[in-house]
Amino acid sequence: MQPSLGFHGVTTERQFIRDLQSQFPARPPVTIGIGDDGAVLDVASHTQQVIVTDLLLDGVHFDLNVISPFLAGRKAVAVNLSDLAAMGCRPTAAFISLAVSRDHVQASPSFLSELYRGIQQMTDEFQFSLAGGDTNSWAGPFAINVCLTGVPFLDRPFLRSQAQAGDAIFVTGPLGGSLHHGRHLTFMPRLQISEWLSRTVDVQAMMDLSDGLSLDLYRMMEASGTAAQISASDIPIHSDVPAEWSFDKRLAAALGDGEDFELLFTVRAAEAATLQAVAEAAAVSMFDIGRVTHGSGIQVIDPLGNRQIMNVTGWQHKL
Amino acid sequence: MQPSLGFHGVTTERQFIRDLQSQFPARPPVTIGIGDDGAVLDVASHTQQVIVTDLLLDGVHFDLNVISPFLAGRKAVAVNLSDLAAMGCRPTAAFISLAVSRDHVQASPSFLSELYRGIQQMTDEFQFSLAGGDTNSWAGPFAINVCLTGVPFLDRPFLRSQAQAGDAIFVTGPLGGSLHHGRHLTFMPRLQISEWLSRTVDVQAMMDLSDGLSLDLYRMMEASGTAAQISASDIPIHSDVPAEWSFDKRLAAALGDGEDFELLFTVRAAEAATLQAVAEAAAVSMFDIGRVTHGSGIQVIDPLGNRQIMNVTGWQHKL
Repeated sequence: MQPSLGFHGVTTERQFIRDLQSQFPARPPVTIGIGDDGAVLDVASHTQQVIVTDLLLDGVHFDLNVISPFLAGRKAVAVNLSDLAAMGCRPTAAFISLAVSRDHVQASPSFLSELYRGIQQMTDEFQFSLAGGDTNSWAGPFAINVCLTGVPFLDRPFLRSQAQAGDAIFVTGPLGGSLHHGRHLTFMPRLQISEWLSRTVDVQAMMDLSDGLSLDLYRMMEASGTAAQISASDIPIHSDVPAEWSFDKRLAAALGDGEDFELLFTVRAAEAATLQAVAEAAAVSMFDIGRVTHGSGIQVIDPLGNRQIMNVTGWQHKL
Repeated sequence: MQPSLGFHGVTTERQFIRDLQSQFPARPPVTIGIGDDGAVLDVASHTQQVIVTDLLLDGVHFDLNVISPFLAGRKAVAVNLSDLAAMGCRPTAAFISLAVSRDHVQASPSFLSELYRGIQQMTDEFQFSLAGGDTNSWAGPFAINVCLTGVPFLDRPFLRSQAQAGDAIFVTGPLGGSLHHGRHLTFMPRLQISEWLSRTVDVQAMMDLSDGLSLDLYRMMEASGTAAQISASDIPIHSDVPAEWSFDKRLAAALGDGEDFELLFTVRAAEAATLQAVAEAAAVSMFDIGRVTHGSGIQVIDPLGNRQIMNVTGWQHKL
């Protein structure tokens, strides 16, 4: 990494780096953090490492005309933490690149510091390091790329491709309405539940719900070479979805709105009842929504018991 | 990571992922590459890992009105490989996020495939994996973030902070004229020399020359708590710097143009003569340009033997 660009002179750059080093201490396993060509991580105590990355763009993933740089920074890290949670991993280090619009910095000199405070809320909450990055300014809109390293809570990462026919399918919370109600900016990544699951049950397949249950379940089943049958009345619908809407409209929101950042996972059917009982006792949010089957595609059983083929909807960018 | 966004439908997205998986095979130590929430690396055989990242922006680091997407993709990876070379590391995996301008894709449907061919030139040359990333389209200009993992050629990474008074200062090639002559797009990252140095000599401090010898040497000396005295007539000037220019103007280009992507490093003075002899015998490019001293700042001895304090120039972004 370049320690940073984007400054009028060496002194300003040095001060910026020192401020970052003080705001973001190098926590183990980071041994060399911000300030050299690259960061150094001690990987001696683990055999496997997971790396996730997501690029968030102003006007696509959030709108800086409406939200604060704090929330933009927080969200950029949180969506990556959600990916680590989905892999059954705790975070170890963050690498964050910024393309900062000159307009934003001119309009608000505190733009960068607010942004970094949003990032810091996540690094402090989950005790990992900002270990590197690259800061540039340009005439384009704001963009932020986050790359996180993580290590499994237990001995192995979870994959989306390991569902097997017969598995029970769970989600960790109610779905829908996230984008309209701003939950996509303030959600807490499900690292705690991921660790609890790692230690409580034999997770088969896991992923996070970023593009909507419909599309993400489709992806998990396709990756696993399996099909799914889910029960419409078992899908938890978030209170952010208007109660006065028809059931079909509310269900469509839960299936298709996206950005829920809950976990979607499967366990052997024999473990399902025990898991739900243990989760209830521990006050861990957990919803059994259906079963993995042989074949391909998603069947939805409606409240009248009719089977329907689910349309693969969900939130997708268009090129 | 999201396996990819930016597509009209699941089928197109799946085909894009499959194409990438076939173009970029998962090479060890990557065990799970493109297609899940994150990539998995086997880190059992190393105790230390280095991670570098750089964000390159259209209109700042290259101009897509002038250069091909192939060269943009190639450069984005190559500058990160240069950072790994500076740390004495070989690359193990790449994570590449793209913000693609809709205009580019509409103007040239092959934009993405040309870009990935440029990336592939580097992953094939140095035998590492594209293991993850995130692809988005937007109304903004093109941006590409590359994050690379690497492991030391030998037992430890090299740092910029380890120069000591008395060390000899070397650069691995002639400097200047890179941006004007397009060398910044086609340079070969100095991984081979980095490995050769790792095995040949006890490197003290090392970094790569991205912002010009003047600024980068200043940074190395500051990080090491040392000063430097360099000899103007020993600084190798690239043939891309016009021969008809005055010596002072040619020297200024070598010191300040930037984007040379050669290595700057120090070794104990007692090793300097041996190193140069061995390098010559092995046809490895190597230039002894001065000595590390106590104190701070950079002194330049001009061809008449006069000492001057070097202005810290070099290529920097302005916020």
